[in-house]
Amino acid sequence: MDTFFDPESVVIIGASNSPFNLGATICKTLHELSSFDGRVYAVNRKGGSVHGCEGFVSVTDIPGNVDLAVIITPAEVVPSFVKQCGEKGIGHIIIESAGFSEDGERGRALQREISETARVYGIRIMGPNCLGVLNARNQFCCFYGVLEDNFETFMSEPGTISYIIQSGGVVAVVLESLMKDVVKVNKVISIGNKSDVDEADMIEYLDRDDTTEVIGMYLENIQHGRKFLDVARGARKPILVFKVGRTDEGALAARSHTAGMANNDALFEGVCRQAGIIRVNSISELHSLPKIFTNMPPLRGTRIAVFTNSGAFGGITADLLVDAGLKMAHLSPETQERLSKTGQIFNVSNPIDLGPALSMQTFMDIFDILLSSDEVDGLLPVPSLWHPMIIDAIGELVKKCRHYRKPAAIYTPNAVYKTVSYRKEYQVPLFESPEEAVRALQVSHQYYHSSRKNGASHSGYDGESVWNGKLYQGVA
Amino acid sequence: MDTFFDPESVVIIGASNSPFNLGATICKTLHELSSFDGRVYAVNRKGGSVHGCEGFVSVTDIPGNVDLAVIITPAEVVPSFVKQCGEKGIGHIIIESAGFSEDGERGRALQREISETARVYGIRIMGPNCLGVLNARNQFCCFYGVLEDNFETFMSEPGTISYIIQSGGVVAVVLESLMKDVVKVNKVISIGNKSDVDEADMIEYLDRDDTTEVIGMYLENIQHGRKFLDVARGARKPILVFKVGRTDEGALAARSHTAGMANNDALFEGVCRQAGIIRVNSISELHSLPKIFTNMPPLRGTRIAVFTNSGAFGGITADLLVDAGLKMAHLSPETQERLSKTGQIFNVSNPIDLGPALSMQTFMDIFDILLSSDEVDGLLPVPSLWHPMIIDAIGELVKKCRHYRKPAAIYTPNAVYKTVSYRKEYQVPLFESPEEAVRALQVSHQYYHSSRKNGASHSGYDGESVWNGKLYQGVA
Repeated sequence: MDTFFDPESVVIIGASNSPFNLGATICKTLHELSSFDGRVYAVNRKGGSVHGCEGFVSVTDIPGNVDLAVIITPAEVVPSFVKQCGEKGIGHIIIESAGFSEDGERGRALQREISETARVYGIRIMGPNCLGVLNARNQFCCFYGVLEDNFETFMSEPGTISYIIQSGGVVAVVLESLMKDVVKVNKVISIGNKSDVDEADMIEYLDRDDTTEVIGMYLENIQHGRKFLDVARGARKPILVFKVGRTDEGALAARSHTAGMANNDALFEGVCRQAGIIRVNSISELHSLPKIFTNMPPLRGTRIAVFTNSGAFGGITADLLVDAGLKMAHLSPETQERLSKTGQIFNVSNPIDLGPALSMQTFMDIFDILLSSDEVDGLLPVPSLWHPMIIDAIGELVKKCRHYRKPAAIYTPNAVYKTVSYRKEYQVPLFESPEEAVRALQVSHQYYHSSRKNGASHSGYDGESVWNGKLYQGVA
Repeated sequence: MDTFFDPESVVIIGASNSPFNLGATICKTLHELSSFDGRVYAVNRKGGSVHGCEGFVSVTDIPGNVDLAVIITPAEVVPSFVKQCGEKGIGHIIIESAGFSEDGERGRALQREISETARVYGIRIMGPNCLGVLNARNQFCCFYGVLEDNFETFMSEPGTISYIIQSGGVVAVVLESLMKDVVKVNKVISIGNKSDVDEADMIEYLDRDDTTEVIGMYLENIQHGRKFLDVARGARKPILVFKVGRTDEGALAARSHTAGMANNDALFEGVCRQAGIIRVNSISELHSLPKIFTNMPPLRGTRIAVFTNSGAFGGITADLLVDAGLKMAHLSPETQERLSKTGQIFNVSNPIDLGPALSMQTFMDIFDILLSSDEVDGLLPVPSLWHPMIIDAIGELVKKCRHYRKPAAIYTPNAVYKTVSYRKEYQVPLFESPEEAVRALQVSHQYYHSSRKNGASHSGYDGESVWNGKLYQGVA
């Protein structure tokens, strides 16, 4: 599978100098925007070079070894190019062209033809009807139509979250959203119709990949239910899945998109529960929630302490926490007494009402008291950003959470656009709404709980290793 | 009640030149930032002028008539100032000071004392523990601590949504969010502990106010359940309410904030249903949903047509629509035939997959076909903004929706910060997620349905009058 992500040489079949040619945009990305250091060839009717990538009329004309082919031609000619790749000895092909099993009987026949040829030559196929792979580590990316600015943002700072996404439109929204978050992208795989490589293969690959800490997935169907369950159950990392097709109408729509059979949603729900998969409720949770895993320790219990300058958000978060199956931590008179000594606090019972005027030292004292208390498993801070000092305090809170091995899901009561801009500027893990912060605590605990349950099979792994980079310590 | 919103003369009691004085910020707002043309006085120990507002030691020293007093002093001295106001003949007081019924037995005693004095003099009281009133029409605003930039943004372009909000923190989030939306603020009322004026009084006032089209509310409790039900049931305008305290924990937290008794949530739910109130699920719905009322006709049926360039969002929205009790419109072969003639459309059944390449004319044709079809009650467009033309097309869609009297809840698949910036720049009613767009259609239909049911009592009102500004035609 590594060849899909780290080829030494790749040919873009269908990249030409015609106007609006999609393959050419891949050549441009790899040769002009990216620091990818593998060889890149183009194959087109005239054999012309494209954006500096040497051109050939046929795959078999390319001198030397080629690891990976990316095919982006009309569907009708894809089978003949797959055959050429086989003759050339190429073992891995990404087919980006649409017009296969998602597109009627003729498309289905074409897809069968490709699968048969691939089987004969022993070729692994990703797609068709996909974008292929983005790998921020080596800047290999065969997505077509990548925007220059976006590309530089994704690639300049590789992160630790990897995605398996069965839709180009969803890839675009997720990557654009992460451009203003503290979590960065590691690998993205768009698997399209899954004629060969499927989501289970990719979970297996990413769970072994030592630069991936969290796996996010958008699925329209499951290719092989049993295989998916087995692989997911064996995975050690948090897996977040958004699956479309909860309703008959949604399943029908998804089917016309990437040709999957409608899966029974109740069955999928059961699989998620058995496998410890976190089923997310929206596309936005795919990019908003991972930071609770990468930037914070896991939530080991359910008792949460809330503190805020805005009394309203004390009540709002209390409702949300209870709805989410968490609890408002009960603070003992001793803890309340300690809190009341830190400064001018309006209300020292949970939710703690900070009142308007606070010093950095008061914040530090509150953090230490709550995080060190055995009455509290995690924090939900809702501080108003009325002073630059508060951002500094939030930065210190993140460090203290690591020290005390308890998480905080931080929400500042602001319009989303302000929150996003503070998060980007100061690189603190802010959530965009009280709902999102509570949900983050909920999934953190869900993951901790399920990884403990399955702990016996995970040598040295206790659900706490993601955030401190210890995932592979003690694993052979 | 008008005096609270449009006083000819107002005194800020407790505004002084001491450092960090909150009352002084109100003088500054009214005298330096605002174009409010009423007289503004200050009362403080030294009788000094504050930010250009003439100062006095006592309320009774002010020459001439005073309509409204704003009190922002320590709680202990509030009763004596209420008495002074009574002696001066002031009929309306906003008490912003905290430390009353939300703050223990002593605070409750102070609040009783105020209420008694007010009763004797026949004074209407707003608060205590509140921000009072913002009125964008005449730029009267007695909120303390208003930020200069924000104030100019709220006030420069008065809108038609008015809020009743029992928390300063929530006011801040809502106003900040609306700064980047197509809906603008008309009036905001922060009613705090509601010792006299309560939410029902304000609903009654805003329902009669001819510049208010939609009423949004944040409540921590209901002061008088029967009065609330009667007033809300009689109201003609959409009322969106977020109420904290759904759970015991949330109710307890709210109680410490604004001193309300915990209300039974199931009872409140019943009141909302009977009164046709739209109960919203988050603070963000308070500012995100009103544009479906102000910028679009109501959703009269439940059959929705979806069109998108991203197949994934077809499935995602289909799931959401069905979950929301709406339906995927069934398009007849004739309608599909008409759609297929408009251009290169991938899939002409609902959800319609537009494919990547579309012209302005194709968009216009699709809008006309769907909006004129008696198979469709409303649209959920999910177009990708890959070309500036698409924004123009969305602008035309808004016009066509008005022409055909059917709504569209538009979502463009983007990161939220991009959506917000497009919405602000082009002033098109974009929703920030597919969930939010579907929710908008749901509440539009809910309001239409309940206003039809209660229609008999609403002369000339059929639930369609908000968006076309006809609310008061035919009403005496």
